[in-house]
Amino acid sequence: MSDIIFRTARLTDLPEIVGLLADDPLGSQRETVSSPVDERYVAAFKAIDVDPNQRLVVATDAEAVIGTLQLSFIPGIARRGAWRGQIEAVRIAAPFRSTGIGQQLFEWAISECKSRGCQLVQLTTDKGRPDAHRFYEKLGFVASHEGYKLQLAG
Amino acid sequence: MSDIIFRTARLTDLPEIVGLLADDPLGSQRETVSSPVDERYVAAFKAIDVDPNQRLVVATDAEAVIGTLQLSFIPGIARRGAWRGQIEAVRIAAPFRSTGIGQQLFEWAISECKSRGCQLVQLTTDKGRPDAHRFYEKLGFVASHEGYKLQLAG
Repeated sequence: MSDIIFRTARLTDLPEIVGLLADDPLGSQRETVSSPVDERYVAAFKAIDVDPNQRLVVATDAEAVIGTLQLSFIPGIARRGAWRGQIEAVRIAAPFRSTGIGQQLFEWAISECKSRGCQLVQLTTDKGRPDAHRFYEKLGFVASHEGYKLQLAG
Repeated sequence: MSDIIFRTARLTDLPEIVGLLADDPLGSQRETVSSPVDERYVAAFKAIDVDPNQRLVVATDAEAVIGTLQLSFIPGIARRGAWRGQIEAVRIAAPFRSTGIGQQLFEWAISECKSRGCQLVQLTTDKGRPDAHRFYEKLGFVASHEGYKLQLAG
């Protein structure tokens, strides 16, 4: 396996990131894959890119984007003013699942949260993803919370 | 009952906000109540205050802060570049619980998320808070996700 790099995403990675998000039973219903990439994704990329507390991340090998996640650094009053690292939109390309890349990507992401002074890393995962639950528990995450969502639009 | 106002928190509200966060079986173990307020809370307040995607909110009556929550507006690539509104650190002062103030505060917060163009509002709540679960479900939230936390410090 060639060397894997974890880095902040560039605009040129966006089509591959959208492709990864769509390549999933839940994601396929939620995403639009097109070329050029839908402008709503470009607007979202820019909103993330200008925000120092948001970081869109990719894992790449020599040829392609093989994984992605988004880190959000969130200041808060609770827990004596603790910062939280939040992880969303995690995907690993199908051929690389169960190869350890996901674990490496998470270990890297957790270490980024530590360097930003976060006291806590948090994420939510759909109850319909039992494999993901086992993955997060292996990394030390505890399912102490219920994750509630309220859809506001379409 | 006097008129209740929902507004962005000011630094002068901070001691009352910390007091609310601490007045709770889980919060009392996590917070430090002192006068003047611990400087870690002041630093956190400032980090929230300078970030246009963070909004610390209070509900006040004529006399005091009677509720608080934090709104985070999070851009993301998933769901065709959807923004999410996230709610954390919700507390209502003990004498005002079950009076409808919490519901009004949430309806106001959800409407703020709509004005910011969010497609989704999300929150997590400790599995040990069954009253909160009923409250969120009454507001239309669905417990579709597991909420995982990983402590990094302390």
